[in-house]
Amino acid sequence: MAPTFRNDYNVLVHPRILAAISTFANEKNIAYGEDIHSQKAAEYLKKTFGAPKANVYFLAGGTQTNLVLISYALRPYEGVISADTGHINVHETAAIEGAGHKIIPLPNHNGKITADQIAKAIRGYDNEHMVKPGMVYLSNSTEMGTIYGKKELEEIARVCRENGLYLYLDGARIGNALTAKSNDLSPEDLGRYCDAFYIGGTKNGLLLGEALVVNNPALNANFRYHIKNKGAMLAKGFLVGIEFEEAFKDGLYFDLARHANAMADRIKEGFLAMGLDLLDSPTNQIFVSFPREEAEEYLRVFDLEKWSEEENAITVRFVTSFATSEADVNALLNYLSQRHQ
Amino acid sequence: MAPTFRNDYNVLVHPRILAAISTFANEKNIAYGEDIHSQKAAEYLKKTFGAPKANVYFLAGGTQTNLVLISYALRPYEGVISADTGHINVHETAAIEGAGHKIIPLPNHNGKITADQIAKAIRGYDNEHMVKPGMVYLSNSTEMGTIYGKKELEEIARVCRENGLYLYLDGARIGNALTAKSNDLSPEDLGRYCDAFYIGGTKNGLLLGEALVVNNPALNANFRYHIKNKGAMLAKGFLVGIEFEEAFKDGLYFDLARHANAMADRIKEGFLAMGLDLLDSPTNQIFVSFPREEAEEYLRVFDLEKWSEEENAITVRFVTSFATSEADVNALLNYLSQRHQ
Amino acid sequence: MAPTFRNDYNVLVHPRILAAISTFANEKNIAYGEDIHSQKAAEYLKKTFGAPKANVYFLAGGTQTNLVLISYALRPYEGVISADTGHINVHETAAIEGAGHKIIPLPNHNGKITADQIAKAIRGYDNEHMVKPGMVYLSNSTEMGTIYGKKELEEIARVCRENGLYLYLDGARIGNALTAKSNDLSPEDLGRYCDAFYIGGTKNGLLLGEALVVNNPALNANFRYHIKNKGAMLAKGFLVGIEFEEAFKDGLYFDLARHANAMADRIKEGFLAMGLDLLDSPTNQIFVSFPREEAEEYLRVFDLEKWSEEENAITVRFVTSFATSEADVNALLNYLSQRHQ
Amino acid sequence: MAPTFRNDYNVLVHPRILAAISTFANEKNIAYGEDIHSQKAAEYLKKTFGAPKANVYFLAGGTQTNLVLISYALRPYEGVISADTGHINVHETAAIEGAGHKIIPLPNHNGKITADQIAKAIRGYDNEHMVKPGMVYLSNSTEMGTIYGKKELEEIARVCRENGLYLYLDGARIGNALTAKSNDLSPEDLGRYCDAFYIGGTKNGLLLGEALVVNNPALNANFRYHIKNKGAMLAKGFLVGIEFEEAFKDGLYFDLARHANAMADRIKEGFLAMGLDLLDSPTNQIFVSFPREEAEEYLRVFDLEKWSEEENAITVRFVTSFATSEADVNALLNYLSQRHQ
Repeated sequence: MAPTFRNDYNVLVHPRILAAISTFANEKNIAYGEDIHSQKAAEYLKKTFGAPKANVYFLAGGTQTNLVLISYALRPYEGVISADTGHINVHETAAIEGAGHKIIPLPNHNGKITADQIAKAIRGYDNEHMVKPGMVYLSNSTEMGTIYGKKELEEIARVCRENGLYLYLDGARIGNALTAKSNDLSPEDLGRYCDAFYIGGTKNGLLLGEALVVNNPALNANFRYHIKNKGAMLAKGFLVGIEFEEAFKDGLYFDLARHANAMADRIKEGFLAMGLDLLDSPTNQIFVSFPREEAEEYLRVFDLEKWSEEENAITVRFVTSFATSEADVNALLNYLSQRHQ
Repeated sequence: MAPTFRNDYNVLVHPRILAAISTFANEKNIAYGEDIHSQKAAEYLKKTFGAPKANVYFLAGGTQTNLVLISYALRPYEGVISADTGHINVHETAAIEGAGHKIIPLPNHNGKITADQIAKAIRGYDNEHMVKPGMVYLSNSTEMGTIYGKKELEEIARVCRENGLYLYLDGARIGNALTAKSNDLSPEDLGRYCDAFYIGGTKNGLLLGEALVVNNPALNANFRYHIKNKGAMLAKGFLVGIEFEEAFKDGLYFDLARHANAMADRIKEGFLAMGLDLLDSPTNQIFVSFPREEAEEYLRVFDLEKWSEEENAITVRFVTSFATSEADVNALLNYLSQRHQ
Repeated sequence: MAPTFRNDYNVLVHPRILAAISTFANEKNIAYGEDIHSQKAAEYLKKTFGAPKANVYFLAGGTQTNLVLISYALRPYEGVISADTGHINVHETAAIEGAGHKIIPLPNHNGKITADQIAKAIRGYDNEHMVKPGMVYLSNSTEMGTIYGKKELEEIARVCRENGLYLYLDGARIGNALTAKSNDLSPEDLGRYCDAFYIGGTKNGLLLGEALVVNNPALNANFRYHIKNKGAMLAKGFLVGIEFEEAFKDGLYFDLARHANAMADRIKEGFLAMGLDLLDSPTNQIFVSFPREEAEEYLRVFDLEKWSEEENAITVRFVTSFATSEADVNALLNYLSQRHQ
Repeated sequence: MAPTFRNDYNVLVHPRILAAISTFANEKNIAYGEDIHSQKAAEYLKKTFGAPKANVYFLAGGTQTNLVLISYALRPYEGVISADTGHINVHETAAIEGAGHKIIPLPNHNGKITADQIAKAIRGYDNEHMVKPGMVYLSNSTEMGTIYGKKELEEIARVCRENGLYLYLDGARIGNALTAKSNDLSPEDLGRYCDAFYIGGTKNGLLLGEALVVNNPALNANFRYHIKNKGAMLAKGFLVGIEFEEAFKDGLYFDLARHANAMADRIKEGFLAMGLDLLDSPTNQIFVSFPREEAEEYLRVFDLEKWSEEENAITVRFVTSFATSEADVNALLNYLSQRHQ
């Protein structure tokens, strides 16, 4: 059977994470995230991401994490600026609006938005009959697989600070971003520039779990009440604590992401050698446009996700993960080489 | 002092509406909209707008009316399609999102959207990770003063019906739309094509008040509970009932709107004679772009609203109302003729 | 026809309020509450109620005002303590919960709650799995017509301050409370003890309108955005401004309330002389329990509201207002004297 | 170290559940709950609980499950009737109100409410100024460890049906209820009487996970959209599917609950032999009131939860689980026998 490149969450768990869970399977722990594993994991995360004074909360999924943080940070009349392609704007079934907040979409450039765009947008919302921008939402890597450079993030952070907006970074695939070859952002830059961010586990080898790092002390009061209010507090919070402890105690998290990127790089090299026309993505998502009939074959054979559709062409997405093997990559490249020599 | 053309709600009330209020000032009435005046007004409205089986509810303002109707009609995961310039998307401080619903903005053409745009948008929202379109929101006249023709409305209604979406029309300025010279829509077409619509009073000579006509019986159950739940039920509902009874018993409503349009037409003729470049609007809102310095003078002198800003130019809005006199129009034209002979 | 004692909002408007509206009917005003009348009214209110630094906002109705203020003041995980008979808990169709906030009901004593009850309740909500009390809601006069004394309000304010809760007073019938014979609260005490309160117009001779006085500067930032977000901003805000300006420029507001109380006092005296058993209410609401058959007759003849129902008895409510005349009172007393000599 | 009896979710996972996870750790699965394991688990659940036409959804936690179901089933102006001790009313940080719905609390009898109470409450909510009861929420076993008998559930279901309310059962501890010695309810009775119910995994040996069984077809349309809208859709839904498949393929779920009950029964027998005064609970939660000083010792030694506090006494809760051993029970009984011979 052909390997799948549908997404990076179709394999349950990396063996080391599973081993850690097994190790602590019988241990009695304090519930609701106040256990020792969650504490240790939080320490690793705060150190890794340059956020020594942050609070860290472990949640179950990305949409939930975005919903919890954004609805905590904003007042009812405030909105959040996002790329129009942003996950919160397109792929969360209006969860943010469901919590009462407008998303202010800006036209994306390969999934990204710029400090200038943001500054201009803020100037346009200047009276009480319009929503008040209260936050900028970025994802890194973005939904298009692209990444923010240090200078870009720095400038966006400056615009936010100057205008009193929070900067929040969705790191569902932050591992892939930070281990991309062209990346110049350090993990510590997240703590330096962001008021809050989350480190995604679900898409990088964990059973489930996202680590929300709340870095700005203005966002601390009674945060756990808010988590519970949104139905997001896990009784066995130590499950996610154990996972992140294992993932960050010696760099496993970045190793897994680096592996996914390496597999994607090999695919991209192969595709380029075949003369295919790729969108520019340095991480583990590859977007290629094929003629309709060819695309439909690949969608079926490799269980891909259709990304967008034009009249005679379809853009498909190939995703690699911690579980993608060299054999998987070879099988893919061999298959496509039948048409593209 | 120069007359103002800032908006159509800066004069409290038309004398006939005030007289009706005075007539019934001492009468004892049933509260919460169950009085005889509200009933009579509802009958007039149902007859006028071709909605014999509709329920009519009287509310205080336009944003409130949009919020009440949309949050009643949609489920939490459903969104409402609107022109990006739509009032709900731009000028209601995220009231719709505050009630939990995403607005799906489509690029406007002079304030309008087309059946084709809507059909295409619906096709793009095709899975449970995206908001589910549940309604189309139109305003007529639009925020740009333009109006929908009969064929346009008919086609939009067909797309809505075929896809199971409600069609809701914001008639804050429906009087101006239906009495515009180029209009080919009849009042009865609202009842024919729309699941719900509201007839605006605040911008057409009433103290306050909008009449929400809920035409689709699927939107009837317990609607009054919903109004109260949103804080929108007026204790003295008979106030708005008395106003609409007076406005519709003999056509006053349309007379006032026709007057506002006539004053606007005279201004447009004058402006065109001066060689000014107007946006195409057949109703009581006139949009003109002037060089920055000139615009700023008019903004100040006539207390206008700045509509948009380009590098060296500003688009300003002139609005006429039931209270605009010929003398006001003459004063405006005389003033501008100093520069534009 | 027999007079009605159903409620205090069944007559449209007091002649002086209507005269003021007529006076300014043709005047051009700034919209959305930024007009000169609203400013003057705000000055009168701030002076009258001892709140020199407060902001005053004019809204359309009581449920709306409660919804706007409470949802502004509380975070999503915070709740509001109220008497179980409180208007927000019983008669607002879950508008407060609809805005996301739990009401924490305490057993009432004739419509009131005590500082001790509140302090004890706060102690019981001590962890993040429970709602966090963030506010105390009082109404004065209460839903049972009773009033808070100065000492009671002072003690409740102290408990609130000591525990970091806001104190909010619903003054839908504050005029009746402050002009009751047994009242020892001064208008200035509201500004002294409350973080916010509203002065009700709808139940005291205005067409509509409530004046929300936000006294605690912590509740000021962007409040007008919040009003608009809840659909509560009136385009012709000057309407309510004109009404409150007239009501407070020379004490009309209190005169009307005093009149309603006086009419109620006459009824109570008459009832007591008949040997009827009244609940203790010093304001314009009178609660009497009658045998079922007798009650049903009065409900029908005087269009009363049934308050509660026991096996063989019904408690009915008689309400007086600015529009209740001595003739009305006499008619009522004469009617009942047929049975109760 | 003394064993803990704090709760039934302090040990990560039962060995068989962990083994199942290990077995499928490398398998590629469809995301978002559309995998084969979730399908098989759903079949087991539908068969076990007599709900052949139900839809089953796997979610992460109990508060989340309650929030998702209740906010799907109710309209904004509708509320849910619950015992005042109900989990949704006390221990969910206003999550239900946060989703917009009022909880209507009824006085509990040992954690339960009756059909008569419910019928009477419904009659009291009879007009549009009050919340409209739309659902009855039960938990079984209750927060006090008590259980509903077949006749009780049948009568409540009848009252719900006659009044058009949904009946929803929170089965966080349904295993303990159905395996209690005094239980006369069959698993199939849930499908017979309830419109929806959930089968709790977190408190019965799973890592995490609750199975929501939506039995009434009126609650089916677009339910998955709603789950996503609330941030509750798990990317790796197959994790919970694998767990429930294992728990229900041969009765493990009930075995674990039966074990917890058996351990609790041994403790209760021991306590009764000591002459202690227990609340009547046939399941795995034991409530005992001790003199303050004694209670505080036990709270510390056995890491118990304080349930309530009187002047000189404290009621503490002892909870057993799948992970409670006979040795744990003996240690507890030995310790208390020092005082109570």
